[in-house]
Amino acid sequence: MIKSKKAIFIGLLLMLYGCTYNTLNPIYKDASQSVDSRVADLISKMTLQEKIKQMDMYWGKEVAIMKGHDAIKFSEEKISQMMDSSGMGSIHDFYPLDPNIGNQIQKYALEKTRLGIPVMFIEEGLHGYSGKNSTTFPVPLQLASAWDSTLVKKIGRVIASESRMHGIHMILGPVLGLARDPRWGRVEETFGEDPYLTALNGTAMVMGLQGDTLSNDNAVIAEPKHFAIHSIPEAGSNIAPAYIGEREARSSFLVPFEMAVRKGKAKGIMAAYHELDGVPCVFNKWLLKSVLRDEWGFKGFVLSDLGAIRMTIENHKVVKDTVEALANTLNAGLNMQFYDFKHESFMDAIVQAVDQGLLDMETIDDAVGDILRLKFELGLFDNPYVKVNNNSDFHNKKHQYLALEAAQKSIVLLKNEKGILPISGKYENIAIIGDLATSTYPGGYSNPDKKTISILEGLKQRLATSKSIQYEKGYSLKDTLDSEKLKTSAVKVSQASDLAIVVIGENIEKVGEGKDRSDLELDSNQLELLKAVYGTGTPVVAILFNGRPLGLNWVDEHIPSIVESWFSGEKNGLAVADVLSGTVNPSGKLPISFPRSVGQLPFYYNHKPSSKHNYVDIDNTPLYSFGHGLSYTTYAYSNLRLSSSEIGIEDSLTVKMTITNTGSRSGEEVVQVYLNDMISSVTTPVKSLCGFKKVFLEPKESKSISFQLHNEAFRLWNQEMKHLVEPGTFQIMIGSSAGDIRLIKNIEIKK
Amino acid sequence: MIKSKKAIFIGLLLMLYGCTYNTLNPIYKDASQSVDSRVADLISKMTLQEKIKQMDMYWGKEVAIMKGHDAIKFSEEKISQMMDSSGMGSIHDFYPLDPNIGNQIQKYALEKTRLGIPVMFIEEGLHGYSGKNSTTFPVPLQLASAWDSTLVKKIGRVIASESRMHGIHMILGPVLGLARDPRWGRVEETFGEDPYLTALNGTAMVMGLQGDTLSNDNAVIAEPKHFAIHSIPEAGSNIAPAYIGEREARSSFLVPFEMAVRKGKAKGIMAAYHELDGVPCVFNKWLLKSVLRDEWGFKGFVLSDLGAIRMTIENHKVVKDTVEALANTLNAGLNMQFYDFKHESFMDAIVQAVDQGLLDMETIDDAVGDILRLKFELGLFDNPYVKVNNNSDFHNKKHQYLALEAAQKSIVLLKNEKGILPISGKYENIAIIGDLATSTYPGGYSNPDKKTISILEGLKQRLATSKSIQYEKGYSLKDTLDSEKLKTSAVKVSQASDLAIVVIGENIEKVGEGKDRSDLELDSNQLELLKAVYGTGTPVVAILFNGRPLGLNWVDEHIPSIVESWFSGEKNGLAVADVLSGTVNPSGKLPISFPRSVGQLPFYYNHKPSSKHNYVDIDNTPLYSFGHGLSYTTYAYSNLRLSSSEIGIEDSLTVKMTITNTGSRSGEEVVQVYLNDMISSVTTPVKSLCGFKKVFLEPKESKSISFQLHNEAFRLWNQEMKHLVEPGTFQIMIGSSAGDIRLIKNIEIKK
Repeated sequence: MIKSKKAIFIGLLLMLYGCTYNTLNPIYKDASQSVDSRVADLISKMTLQEKIKQMDMYWGKEVAIMKGHDAIKFSEEKISQMMDSSGMGSIHDFYPLDPNIGNQIQKYALEKTRLGIPVMFIEEGLHGYSGKNSTTFPVPLQLASAWDSTLVKKIGRVIASESRMHGIHMILGPVLGLARDPRWGRVEETFGEDPYLTALNGTAMVMGLQGDTLSNDNAVIAEPKHFAIHSIPEAGSNIAPAYIGEREARSSFLVPFEMAVRKGKAKGIMAAYHELDGVPCVFNKWLLKSVLRDEWGFKGFVLSDLGAIRMTIENHKVVKDTVEALANTLNAGLNMQFYDFKHESFMDAIVQAVDQGLLDMETIDDAVGDILRLKFELGLFDNPYVKVNNNSDFHNKKHQYLALEAAQKSIVLLKNEKGILPISGKYENIAIIGDLATSTYPGGYSNPDKKTISILEGLKQRLATSKSIQYEKGYSLKDTLDSEKLKTSAVKVSQASDLAIVVIGENIEKVGEGKDRSDLELDSNQLELLKAVYGTGTPVVAILFNGRPLGLNWVDEHIPSIVESWFSGEKNGLAVADVLSGTVNPSGKLPISFPRSVGQLPFYYNHKPSSKHNYVDIDNTPLYSFGHGLSYTTYAYSNLRLSSSEIGIEDSLTVKMTITNTGSRSGEEVVQVYLNDMISSVTTPVKSLCGFKKVFLEPKESKSISFQLHNEAFRLWNQEMKHLVEPGTFQIMIGSSAGDIRLIKNIEIKK
Repeated sequence: MIKSKKAIFIGLLLMLYGCTYNTLNPIYKDASQSVDSRVADLISKMTLQEKIKQMDMYWGKEVAIMKGHDAIKFSEEKISQMMDSSGMGSIHDFYPLDPNIGNQIQKYALEKTRLGIPVMFIEEGLHGYSGKNSTTFPVPLQLASAWDSTLVKKIGRVIASESRMHGIHMILGPVLGLARDPRWGRVEETFGEDPYLTALNGTAMVMGLQGDTLSNDNAVIAEPKHFAIHSIPEAGSNIAPAYIGEREARSSFLVPFEMAVRKGKAKGIMAAYHELDGVPCVFNKWLLKSVLRDEWGFKGFVLSDLGAIRMTIENHKVVKDTVEALANTLNAGLNMQFYDFKHESFMDAIVQAVDQGLLDMETIDDAVGDILRLKFELGLFDNPYVKVNNNSDFHNKKHQYLALEAAQKSIVLLKNEKGILPISGKYENIAIIGDLATSTYPGGYSNPDKKTISILEGLKQRLATSKSIQYEKGYSLKDTLDSEKLKTSAVKVSQASDLAIVVIGENIEKVGEGKDRSDLELDSNQLELLKAVYGTGTPVVAILFNGRPLGLNWVDEHIPSIVESWFSGEKNGLAVADVLSGTVNPSGKLPISFPRSVGQLPFYYNHKPSSKHNYVDIDNTPLYSFGHGLSYTTYAYSNLRLSSSEIGIEDSLTVKMTITNTGSRSGEEVVQVYLNDMISSVTTPVKSLCGFKKVFLEPKESKSISFQLHNEAFRLWNQEMKHLVEPGTFQIMIGSSAGDIRLIKNIEIKK
């Protein structure tokens, strides 16, 4: 009995110790435990209110003292009003000038809430962390024009490091929609129209952002968006329904997301605003559960786009109130709201949904678990504060150089007749014309205060020592009252010059999110100015400053040299000057087709064979093909060889060819491989990009290059919606663009 | 034993008699047997070759002596070369001037083939039997503008009687595609953009064509086309893929076909050229079997559109050869080819497909059975010849009057400011201007030799006794060289006139099948002419002569009076004159929205709530709404009453309202009822037409009218693709157009 009593006593002591220990040092705080155990432990301790808080997002202005776009000071008063002992999921639109502001909030979360769950900071960073004075790269459409996913990954690394050094844990991007409708204002945010190119660039960006491991102090969660098929809104009007069948969705639109999740291991996904065949994406179990989680094995969290849940009530009208909206979206697989509802309403609605049996605790636990898992993976429980002294790496020379390099490699030479470009040595007096030549616009989703080097400024910096440069506005973006006067002055200066560089493109009021156009033509005052300058007989170079393909029929017909500079990031003008001067030999290629008219839309190269664009009033070709881009040198394509004339359905194929620089300048050519499944049980595109390489060649140099086409390249989604390779003949095409195929060979795939 | 021998002898005698009797009088020739027994019996006697012949179509020129479009003489030589003892399925593009030519072919089929299976004659007749001198009605888009399905049914009856009296058994129409893309040249062939209006008109046409019973001498098989979702080809380019999800297909595009089959009992269906999400329609089991036959109970036969099977090889590239193409299409549910392959190839390929086990005999028997069943239902076995003496009913006064009435009721007054119209009494000297004023074009799919009464001719006939009329060409459709001269003369005449009637619209080289446009604007010489005439200060009426919505921004902004006359059929000019003069008070309403620009496409009224057409450069409204159309009088809408404020999900609702003619002329108003399912589990259109009535009112007269909304009107296709009514609030809207809603009330639907 004594023994027994003693045992009980010791047992009780141990239990007490255990409890105390567990309370003081619960499993979820123990870094030696697995993430899964920590998540499970933490969830088991949380109240419903604490769980709901984790699914909620707060706005910078709610939690800190801001000056414009930036958080300038911690405020215990503000944070204490927003964060009670039940915690806070995330904060967005905060942009702390000093990382200590975030650290203080984090400290508050850790010390003043019951469970001490850290906060996640989420920001924008589509082509550069959007905080003040960060490095701003070219817009994604231009990055895609470089045809260099290694470059995109490097940029992702810079964005991640500049973000994380400010205490940011997640960046809302990349955009992985396929740009099939240039009317849509967000085309500049995409990597273009092609599934493969977008998948490569998107995955590179995801891997760049997320780095080796999320707990590193230079890694952030990437959040591919907008899931899914957001980029072909009906009539090109933002957030309108996307009409498409499942096979085309899987064959094209879902491809970049799948690669970003499966290969890139993206840990965030943004559910889009719009509806798919009657079901809003935030409601879409097929999308958020079956495809994303069950098929692809996604292990991150899904954030709804700003207002997307609210849209289910107010716009899509599929539910009557917040309770139903939240029950349905959480049941569909959503994890976090993006300011849709006030915090109290959000809390109340979910509590009500649970009370009414619309939502069960398991669903909530899953949703919260996904968020907490990432907070553990980010190391926020173990290493919650950002070091303050690493700010010296912010916008450093290396980052700035990368911004310049990215712009140089992605400017596209659309046309260059009569050897007008490069400028080098040929012209003494140069007229630079166009209101847009002075634009310092960096493209959408960057720091609104960010100024780039304008084209005029860049040309002045690079050329002014050797050339005489005169600038004329030529046209005004703001009003057309003085257009005659501006035009007259521009004509006068052009007449007195050896070369006129005219910058045309888009008024930034007409491009970007929410700025959809029904027409792709140049503003009439720009076109009139260009015609007038052309009329002087002075050689003209047109520089395009725009975020989408424009209607350029007249320009292409008359202007001998045309350069697509998109929105080239902070080094914009310098990169343009380098290309014009010839310091850089242009090597960019279009990641999107240029139609001849808005009336040909949609117009993308990898269409089905029956989509012929035959009209009685216009040519059925694009003005510029996908993949098009010239160089100051020329390249010859030869000697296409396949590793075998016949392979099995599981096999890979090696494709080799020889590329030769036949001109007198060194340069880089993007050699493109396209595939056509010649006969297939379901229709397949006339050609699909399945490989490319950007090759540097000295004058007269030849290189043999090879491409490995893995069996995935040959797959289709058959009538039973199985993803497989069908035996048959495939055509391998090598080209300098989708419209300029140079070499063709067939390969047989056998059972 | 003797008894037994005798019995055997008698038995043998009876057997012999029976066999002989069955051979001489087989079941399939016995009119007292059921159609099913006759079909089964006939099939049991047929060789594979005979079966294949029934699935084949022959061309007029192969079987008879033709002069241009018309068969003028029977030729035993020709028919004997084409028809061996195994028979012939059908003949198309034959148009016998004398029904005896067809009778002689039929006689040949009955007497010179082993089984004596009659031939089916199939022709075009979209808005009038396309044989010579038939009655030509307005194009379907205009018929739809009458908002009068009784009228459409009457027209169907005339087409059927004029066809059958020529020995024709089947007419290829109506077109039941929803016209959501005016770039597509075939918009004129449709009943417009709305599922309900198209379903009503389409079903009326089917019932008109098929009459009470197919064996009547004034009935033909109707063949709704093009099955399905052909009318939204990608980029508006004919036969391009249609991209759409199943829910939108079922909610909109399949609705008219379903009604035509279920209610109209259409016995023919034409499978379309294009592909749906990777699967060509002729290959599409879901479409041709699951939906058409299993769900809707279709008991007719499916003909492929001309060349559609061949397209699976050459265009869609889903099969390698004819054998595979035919095996796949027949397995998918197709019954008859339309000239795709030469007769020998067609025969050989199907035989090979059977030999190779790609096609089984049951499938062939089903396919042939569907065709034979209709030949029995048409009475061709029992009453194979057409009476020759009923030709007096052809293009008779009654038919001609119906053509005039149809045009009068369907011309749409788009705008009428300053009381410029009607002409009556106001103007003495009238200038009629425009090359199109002399056009006698009847619209696509009519007899190519048919001439209509031009607008100029009609105005002269109706007005010349009371007015002075001067005609000027004004512009030329053929060339623009003399445009200045033409314009100058037109201006001169306009200056000297009290009113200028300018006819503008489409060059017929730019409208109709295979004539898709990338731009909807008026030819620039037409617009310049119109501007010049407008500049004279003489009041201007613009008459539109066109097959699709056009870009009319300038016209709408400046010209006070605009009349849409489409392609009004043989009485075109007379009907236009009657409307202009005021003899007829216009009552047509647009069955299709007019966008402001091609860049707004697609633009249809019954879009989803998130499809907002917001652009930075253009208004988000249509130029003219679906349902829009003015009158010379005005109407007031009042006193909306619902039979109940609350109904059950199985119930109907009666909607009543009062319409008053508030003007001083009698007229007809089309009162339109729209529905909005305010909250639904899947998104539903902002409004959907669910009822309308065309009401005649004397000046100051009021009428109470009522609409019965059956429970189908409230149904949606839910997330599980079930077609049902969801309880909730529905908004009932009564309007004069989709853009001009006058009365609104809500109804609650309870479980």
